[in-house]
Amino acid sequence: MFNTRTKSRRPLQRTQPVVRTAVSRVSADGMGCVPSNGDENLYLYRYEQKVKQAFANIESCLKRISGLQHTEDFISRSQLVAREQLGFDLPEALLADSWIKSVDIGQLYVWCVFETFRRFSDEFFVDQPLAGLEDESFQTFVGKCGFHTVDVSPCADGRLAHVIRYVLRLPYKSVRRKSYAGAMFDIDDSLQKWVETEMLRYRESRPNSSDAATRYLKVAVYHYSSSAPGVEGCAAHGSDAVKSAEGALSRLRAFQQGVENTFCCGASIDLLLIGVDTDNDVIRIHLPDVGGDIDSLSYVDCNDIYEATVNAGRSDEAIYDFIKQVAQKQRVAPTEGMLRFITKLFHNNILQVNYVREYYNGRYKDIGHQECFIGMGIGFEEIQLRNLTYFAYLKTVEEGAKDLDVGIKIFSGLNVSRGLPIPVIIRNDYHGQVPGARERAVNRCHQLDAALKHRFKSLYDEGMLHTLMMVRDCNADSCVETVGCSLPLDQ
Amino acid sequence: MFNTRTKSRRPLQRTQPVVRTAVSRVSADGMGCVPSNGDENLYLYRYEQKVKQAFANIESCLKRISGLQHTEDFISRSQLVAREQLGFDLPEALLADSWIKSVDIGQLYVWCVFETFRRFSDEFFVDQPLAGLEDESFQTFVGKCGFHTVDVSPCADGRLAHVIRYVLRLPYKSVRRKSYAGAMFDIDDSLQKWVETEMLRYRESRPNSSDAATRYLKVAVYHYSSSAPGVEGCAAHGSDAVKSAEGALSRLRAFQQGVENTFCCGASIDLLLIGVDTDNDVIRIHLPDVGGDIDSLSYVDCNDIYEATVNAGRSDEAIYDFIKQVAQKQRVAPTEGMLRFITKLFHNNILQVNYVREYYNGRYKDIGHQECFIGMGIGFEEIQLRNLTYFAYLKTVEEGAKDLDVGIKIFSGLNVSRGLPIPVIIRNDYHGQVPGARERAVNRCHQLDAALKHRFKSLYDEGMLHTLMMVRDCNADSCVETVGCSLPLDQ
Repeated sequence: MFNTRTKSRRPLQRTQPVVRTAVSRVSADGMGCVPSNGDENLYLYRYEQKVKQAFANIESCLKRISGLQHTEDFISRSQLVAREQLGFDLPEALLADSWIKSVDIGQLYVWCVFETFRRFSDEFFVDQPLAGLEDESFQTFVGKCGFHTVDVSPCADGRLAHVIRYVLRLPYKSVRRKSYAGAMFDIDDSLQKWVETEMLRYRESRPNSSDAATRYLKVAVYHYSSSAPGVEGCAAHGSDAVKSAEGALSRLRAFQQGVENTFCCGASIDLLLIGVDTDNDVIRIHLPDVGGDIDSLSYVDCNDIYEATVNAGRSDEAIYDFIKQVAQKQRVAPTEGMLRFITKLFHNNILQVNYVREYYNGRYKDIGHQECFIGMGIGFEEIQLRNLTYFAYLKTVEEGAKDLDVGIKIFSGLNVSRGLPIPVIIRNDYHGQVPGARERAVNRCHQLDAALKHRFKSLYDEGMLHTLMMVRDCNADSCVETVGCSLPLDQ
Repeated sequence: MFNTRTKSRRPLQRTQPVVRTAVSRVSADGMGCVPSNGDENLYLYRYEQKVKQAFANIESCLKRISGLQHTEDFISRSQLVAREQLGFDLPEALLADSWIKSVDIGQLYVWCVFETFRRFSDEFFVDQPLAGLEDESFQTFVGKCGFHTVDVSPCADGRLAHVIRYVLRLPYKSVRRKSYAGAMFDIDDSLQKWVETEMLRYRESRPNSSDAATRYLKVAVYHYSSSAPGVEGCAAHGSDAVKSAEGALSRLRAFQQGVENTFCCGASIDLLLIGVDTDNDVIRIHLPDVGGDIDSLSYVDCNDIYEATVNAGRSDEAIYDFIKQVAQKQRVAPTEGMLRFITKLFHNNILQVNYVREYYNGRYKDIGHQECFIGMGIGFEEIQLRNLTYFAYLKTVEEGAKDLDVGIKIFSGLNVSRGLPIPVIIRNDYHGQVPGARERAVNRCHQLDAALKHRFKSLYDEGMLHTLMMVRDCNADSCVETVGCSLPLDQ
């Protein structure tokens, strides 16, 4: 009953997985390994710029191509421009009929976004440009702090997409990330993950044995805007920072209580609530009491630590002491391990504060939404950059409808208002060791594709919504595989 | 964007959970406890008849009421008839305007189905008429056979809804049941259940300790019709018994391989494939080899056991010996525990074969679909009767669309063709100990309701589709709670 029309299913890329190069962790342009010293900010900035620029080039390139229409040799001249500015050819099918009717710039635009993403994604999984942080030592550190799993649910807002690797400087492979609009994460999904984690500890001593007195740490990350608090905050909470904190905290508490009520023998989890100022990536952390209580109104702000510890060289000891003082004032007593963990987060965030100060004059220019595409489904490990993707983690459009509506609204402003279609990348990662998993992931892509086009039928009918379908075997750590596209590439 | 119009949300019943009576396991009509001796068949028959008759009375009652239209005292005379035939009053709102326009028999019909179900469901959870089998001794027996969990996925067909409690005579509380069209169960859902089961064994020694050398037994139950094999078999497999067996077996193998490939230390599960002849409830079991291999074409048929063991009084020993002989002929060697378990299933099925012989002359009259309503969502533990409900276990209409389409097609023939609407009961059971679980279950009901009405919009607009929404706290073992209804009861 759903509209399942798909103009083309021709893969955009080769179907063979890209072979990992022998020298991994060396990015394609020879930037080299991620440096562990002070050059990290420069490295991260170059990587961010390279990727962002690749997407930004699309519009300027297409402006030039648009101007070439109805000239002689339009196709070859366009390809020359594309190769020069984007590094790849455009599909002939989208250029061929330009002598009959105007070339469809919208379709070209979407195709370029999809192709740029595909190349960026391939590079991410082959070269692992952001893999520099040592997962093993992080796991050891986390264990010493009293945790065996760090499970982070940030808001789905694209301005938080870099929260793991940039804002908190954590190894993205060692931290579970599941984004939800307003950080209002799914309790049942989290309970399921808790069960799986405990089972692996008992059965396979992964990541540590069940004898170890460690706990599952659930972190929720909300956000706000210090310069435009009533406008550029979290859309899911009416751009209200207090409501954002309270909303995320209510989910944390419900998850904790769910674990405690469902399982015996003192089962529980630890909680942490973090806020991010999306103007400048400064974090605030709400200190949890030894009993786990968290106050949505009390927190430690990294700005204060930044200023207060300047004379002490912003050392870990100085940060630790500052947090401890604030804790005493707020009459909360976090566990020693939690204090150490929070110290680490502030230590890392100071690097990011310096990053924004150094490269963005202390405040991003794009404090509002500037995402390039919507990513929906399950996956997107490669998205660790700010304001590139609006996330909608979902298994069905029916369940994720609210998140999608927000995304479509944002892109109606960013793209449709200018006549550019909305590029949506539908993604389903799967565990290749389970028989039929790939087939089910592909089917789910098509199911999501049909439901999306059905829900936003008028946009789709007007050519203002295009989709690319991709799957990835996350167990094989392979590249993404394209399994369908709504563009008429076979014409 | 979905149509969320709901004419009324007034609960059909009191919102307070029904208080459990002191004398439980005594059914409302004083039939007494389930007998463990030979009278069980009579008891089960009376229970089945009582429930089926309650639903069957609806049509004859409404025929009489239809004939009373435009008579004086229509309302009071109708109520008299309803009270006499159904045992309850009809809602005034559906009778009130009969002097202006014809009374809407379709709406009355649906309301009566919903009310009859509600009463039947309440009785089930309060009186526990089918709880007679001892769960504890069953768990001990299963453990001796080498299993700690029995997880059954029958086809969603209503003619298999009684498979646990009647056909196999197993305690429904001790056996997990999840029905899917064609017994094509969800691999990921099963993997998740396996993980949860292992976790509880390790962490809480439930149902037994992880030290015990027992395994998770996954059973798939397909079906066929011996008298009309090409017509009344499984719709999901084109009424082809071999394809039905192969389909179910492919899922069993995929689940097993999924467990083996995902977890280390020799993790695996045991498999069992069962076929049911829906004409007479005779089962066939495909004997698994000691290595777990199953042949979709080879099986032991209960008809053969029934005949071959008659002189030995159909004793367990005789059944066991017969199975062992067949196994030798088929060159398969099931484990001793599996042989004992299969013996038990055949022993139980012989009781059911006698049941059908005694009360239905060896063959049901309704060999085709005769379900009274569609049940969609998660729950319905109380449905242990044949041909009463078409199941669609689903979290979203988007995922369960195929199952629902089959159900709507069946009821288009059964009801809509005669001008009667399709009654759909939307159900979501929840775990009350998890904060917000009830609220989420209620929200999910409304989400499913909206998606269903959207998918079958023309049926709904024509008044040919009505829904009742119910939730239940399955941890509190309470009665169902009505949270919404599409009928105009507030007029």
